[in-house]
Amino acid sequence: MDAIRSRSEPDSITGRSTKEDPMALNAIPTARASHDEYAANQDGEAAPSSSLELHKTTSDMRTTRSRLGLQPQAPIVEEHDLAEQQDWWWAKVRIALREPFAEFFGTMILVLFGDGAVAQVLLSTGQKSAPGGNGFGNYQSINWGWALGVMLGIYVAGDSGAYLNPAITFTNCVLRKLPWRRFPIYLLAQFLGGFVASGIIYGNYIDGINKVEGPGLRTVPPSPTATAGIFCTYPQAFDTTSPQFADEFLASAILMFVIYALKDDSNKGQFSASGAWFPLAMFFLIFGIGACFNFWVPIVAPFCGCLFGGILYDVFLYTGPDSLVNQPWFGLKDLARPKAAILERMEKHQAEGLV
Amino acid sequence: MDAIRSRSEPDSITGRSTKEDPMALNAIPTARASHDEYAANQDGEAAPSSSLELHKTTSDMRTTRSRLGLQPQAPIVEEHDLAEQQDWWWAKVRIALREPFAEFFGTMILVLFGDGAVAQVLLSTGQKSAPGGNGFGNYQSINWGWALGVMLGIYVAGDSGAYLNPAITFTNCVLRKLPWRRFPIYLLAQFLGGFVASGIIYGNYIDGINKVEGPGLRTVPPSPTATAGIFCTYPQAFDTTSPQFADEFLASAILMFVIYALKDDSNKGQFSASGAWFPLAMFFLIFGIGACFNFWVPIVAPFCGCLFGGILYDVFLYTGPDSLVNQPWFGLKDLARPKAAILERMEKHQAEGLV
Amino acid sequence: MDAIRSRSEPDSITGRSTKEDPMALNAIPTARASHDEYAANQDGEAAPSSSLELHKTTSDMRTTRSRLGLQPQAPIVEEHDLAEQQDWWWAKVRIALREPFAEFFGTMILVLFGDGAVAQVLLSTGQKSAPGGNGFGNYQSINWGWALGVMLGIYVAGDSGAYLNPAITFTNCVLRKLPWRRFPIYLLAQFLGGFVASGIIYGNYIDGINKVEGPGLRTVPPSPTATAGIFCTYPQAFDTTSPQFADEFLASAILMFVIYALKDDSNKGQFSASGAWFPLAMFFLIFGIGACFNFWVPIVAPFCGCLFGGILYDVFLYTGPDSLVNQPWFGLKDLARPKAAILERMEKHQAEGLV
Amino acid sequence: MDAIRSRSEPDSITGRSTKEDPMALNAIPTARASHDEYAANQDGEAAPSSSLELHKTTSDMRTTRSRLGLQPQAPIVEEHDLAEQQDWWWAKVRIALREPFAEFFGTMILVLFGDGAVAQVLLSTGQKSAPGGNGFGNYQSINWGWALGVMLGIYVAGDSGAYLNPAITFTNCVLRKLPWRRFPIYLLAQFLGGFVASGIIYGNYIDGINKVEGPGLRTVPPSPTATAGIFCTYPQAFDTTSPQFADEFLASAILMFVIYALKDDSNKGQFSASGAWFPLAMFFLIFGIGACFNFWVPIVAPFCGCLFGGILYDVFLYTGPDSLVNQPWFGLKDLARPKAAILERMEKHQAEGLV
Repeated sequence: MDAIRSRSEPDSITGRSTKEDPMALNAIPTARASHDEYAANQDGEAAPSSSLELHKTTSDMRTTRSRLGLQPQAPIVEEHDLAEQQDWWWAKVRIALREPFAEFFGTMILVLFGDGAVAQVLLSTGQKSAPGGNGFGNYQSINWGWALGVMLGIYVAGDSGAYLNPAITFTNCVLRKLPWRRFPIYLLAQFLGGFVASGIIYGNYIDGINKVEGPGLRTVPPSPTATAGIFCTYPQAFDTTSPQFADEFLASAILMFVIYALKDDSNKGQFSASGAWFPLAMFFLIFGIGACFNFWVPIVAPFCGCLFGGILYDVFLYTGPDSLVNQPWFGLKDLARPKAAILERMEKHQAEGLV
Repeated sequence: MDAIRSRSEPDSITGRSTKEDPMALNAIPTARASHDEYAANQDGEAAPSSSLELHKTTSDMRTTRSRLGLQPQAPIVEEHDLAEQQDWWWAKVRIALREPFAEFFGTMILVLFGDGAVAQVLLSTGQKSAPGGNGFGNYQSINWGWALGVMLGIYVAGDSGAYLNPAITFTNCVLRKLPWRRFPIYLLAQFLGGFVASGIIYGNYIDGINKVEGPGLRTVPPSPTATAGIFCTYPQAFDTTSPQFADEFLASAILMFVIYALKDDSNKGQFSASGAWFPLAMFFLIFGIGACFNFWVPIVAPFCGCLFGGILYDVFLYTGPDSLVNQPWFGLKDLARPKAAILERMEKHQAEGLV
Repeated sequence: MDAIRSRSEPDSITGRSTKEDPMALNAIPTARASHDEYAANQDGEAAPSSSLELHKTTSDMRTTRSRLGLQPQAPIVEEHDLAEQQDWWWAKVRIALREPFAEFFGTMILVLFGDGAVAQVLLSTGQKSAPGGNGFGNYQSINWGWALGVMLGIYVAGDSGAYLNPAITFTNCVLRKLPWRRFPIYLLAQFLGGFVASGIIYGNYIDGINKVEGPGLRTVPPSPTATAGIFCTYPQAFDTTSPQFADEFLASAILMFVIYALKDDSNKGQFSASGAWFPLAMFFLIFGIGACFNFWVPIVAPFCGCLFGGILYDVFLYTGPDSLVNQPWFGLKDLARPKAAILERMEKHQAEGLV
Repeated sequence: MDAIRSRSEPDSITGRSTKEDPMALNAIPTARASHDEYAANQDGEAAPSSSLELHKTTSDMRTTRSRLGLQPQAPIVEEHDLAEQQDWWWAKVRIALREPFAEFFGTMILVLFGDGAVAQVLLSTGQKSAPGGNGFGNYQSINWGWALGVMLGIYVAGDSGAYLNPAITFTNCVLRKLPWRRFPIYLLAQFLGGFVASGIIYGNYIDGINKVEGPGLRTVPPSPTATAGIFCTYPQAFDTTSPQFADEFLASAILMFVIYALKDDSNKGQFSASGAWFPLAMFFLIFGIGACFNFWVPIVAPFCGCLFGGILYDVFLYTGPDSLVNQPWFGLKDLARPKAAILERMEKHQAEGLV
């Protein structure tokens, strides 16, 4: 049971619980899977005499984590969990807040690279003294920055599921059984990570911003010296009259649709994109969205878009029973009996140890 | 037998039947392969009492699928096939049309990224307010768009074989025993996917197109404000007098030749490019064709070119017996007795459960 | 013994014989390795009654291949070797010339992408009607073209070792026991592959060349309309007085040094770059050499450079006994007794079944 | 015991000892791991009679290596260690200096590609005769150069741990138990590697430098003809008044933070970035730092930044007991008893065979 503990977290961006999903366990074995086997063997040998002592994640810890909306058992490898220094108060904090910390730093890395790339390109536009004589990078550099920021952010935030974005977290709560109770603390961690990163970029490039805009001046597009685009998305010049909403919606829908396809091991023939290949595939996905559409930051459209893209995938391509829309009448019947539906869902979550 | 069901689909772009091809089963194990092992074990244990009940893919379904030209058994993993909700009518539709849906969405993703990249670059050419001061992307961005569109489209359409293109489907029918009966529905799915994606891109960029061309005006190259190049391929300026056919033919032949090389596990020494590596290798292949030749859309040349490239590979490098041209006299003797040849082929397909 | 047959080919660019190199067999298992295990199992079961009949590669074939300098047993997988159609005369030609065909087509693909990229960039320089308004690609596209050309060429030519270049073949003959007798036919195949590819590119882009240079005119740099650079390397403007030789030598030495490092499984800690990772690592290597140095085509410097880079690696980092310079006095003592040394080497090759 | 020998080296950039870290052994099996298994099997069969003779790494060698600060047993595979030619004096030198040689050549390759890319771009800026009409590369090419230089340098220097940088080595000494005694010889090897590479680049591009600057003239930015930027980092134009230190500190902190995340198999869910994926992930990390920040060469900031980034990761995300800061009071209590702390650490190192 200890061995399974670190696996009972819904797996990555799809939020599919690995516990009820034998597929995930059959994926290309990663270091983590090996751990579990290692732990399982250890457990098997040592089980009778020590199974009680093994649980250093005390009931105190479990209560704290449950209150935060996290699953009672933190995703931590056996060897580390048993180590002596985990009794220290900070070690306990680190375990209690494991997933929020992961989301915080993952989002921070993502935004550091994304905003950093925009800043460097925008502030050096046309600079003749740069190698190559035309600034430190071009629009392509920005795609690189966001795409590898996502890739590296996923590596940093592996243990929390690496959602890195409220809209993606939201969609997984709706469609992939990620418990709603976990949404607030993930949202908080992601927002803080993004804001801290923006602050760091602002501090690092403040001289450049002052030089381009003039000291103390800050403008937004279409001002020719606008630098606000480092931190937000503004419409392209030719988009001024069209609903910017539609563009964001489209990009978000494509994002979510392809993420679900990448994570769906039941629809990839011989091609594996989950496990070790996932972060690399995400690099190409984000690069593509940057190269072909506008995207990422704004508030409302991504939530609608991600949800739509996720539903589209589940309705037409996903055959697994764990999706909300893979029920008779696409799960809409639950709308007539919301209370019962919520209770059923919570009971199921508790039975699976997710809350 | 259930275990083998989801493998009896010809594998990926080559259309080689995995059933008669022990090679494919020896490839780097993917999640899918693991599934089968999982299912096989399950099957072994539970077989005597439940082997009849297991077949939720009813004979009705098989008839429907056979009429559409698909193999009777849908490629769906055991766990999903057995789940309760598969009795719902939409679940049945989704299983009956599994491969066409996959081709539709795979091609849609491919064209969304491809056309999207062209649109963004073309409509922002020379735009001074872009980061870097020279538009949102350059010709390289278009190569990125098409290349990663193919890569991600393959991930989306894994279960259908991920042909994503009528010319490639056609070549696999001729050379790799993909049943001809499956060609029409694949063709339809690919065309619809491409058209829907073009429509989405047109809708998304219509303001930009109106701004560049003038409202209501639409021109084709060599008009300096032409935007039709977003959706079709036009000759480069220096190609005006030469047969454009030759260029398309060459690009298509290289495409098919390298795809067959990538999928041919019998000719790669220690280098594996099938399985998990295939989509990434395809990224480089498509990027290369975009960086070095014109390509992709037009009608006649790709069919000739893909067929020629496939034959070239089979004649000189492929040693497997399943290629049409790997028969005495390159299989041309069958031209003298077409009816008998077709019957033999159909019998073989039926024996292998492909139709 | 049949099972081992397809492995007795020196493995890839290093030309290290896998037979005497247990390392290679321990590499990440590829489809090929799995084949061998498959074949080995089959062999084990069926051996007593059929071991004689299994050898369809007849003694005639072996003689032909030996005369060409190839190892007597062609690298072909068991299943294909046993198939009925291998009795046909063309199938025999294809087996007899397996490695030369692989080198021919591998080099052809390499040069098609490399020269194709140069042609497309050079002939469209500054073209305003291109998407992005500045030609179809830039210097970076050329690096992409050569780098992915090498990557895809290696996939195409896996079974011959994928040398793709006389200088690399030469260095492997000197340092990695690739039999000298195989050098002429590999050289011929590589030259023909390169020439055929150049011819195809010339034919494909002849209208563009005529347009840039004027019909019938052909010039070389520093002519401002020179297009000869599509097919050869010319010095950069600032290199005019320096020995171009040094630059080529340096690039070739780095190329060979890193290739040997990539293939040396005894010096990579946890990092694997042979097997499935090798073609991707080669992409980065060639891209890097293109981005940082001039390279590839000219005649003398690459031979010296590759040999120097290979010796450098073997002297300082390679600990294996199969390198010529990993003998006492760096193998130079053999210079005093050339005849004996050659005889010893040939005996060893024969014992290993390489000639 | 022999089998374990080549694994007792701290693994790669993190310097985590694999001996006490069962995680590393559970990573995706690499060729090296397979070796050990191979060796282990061999050893198991042959152990009784030959276990003494097997140790060709004599006690002399061990003393030499210990004096240099290296672990007594060189990381060399069994088969090579036992080969006859290891008795030759140069073979002994090569084994004694195995890790310094690896760091020297790894850093050399890194700087060759990095400086080479800067040189080629800087010296050809604006050159009209280049393909594409605008020099041989742009700022992006420099990112490519440094990023793939690091990737290939890691492959070259696998056996030493591939630190390739004094600041990273320093941080691993502080936080990951890399013995301090090893620091001087690694530092020396890295500096020599970097200087030799700079010398080669200077020699290769001296004509270009003379042409841009004028013969015999050498200037630094902001001189418009400055070429010193090939070999050092200078502030961007808009950074002139800001503390350049902060920028370097930030880039170094991000570098170290992400490296520790990549190597931490206990925090990546299903995503593996150690082992075979590490060099590729490093390519994206270095590319990102180049595309978004300034970096790499200067003296003081990287040491502070790397240390800070490493501490940040360990405090918030790393749960393993082998980090210095993962002790009660973040290990600061040891500052009150430095002598005892140092002695304890040395004893532990000796028990683990690291010194």
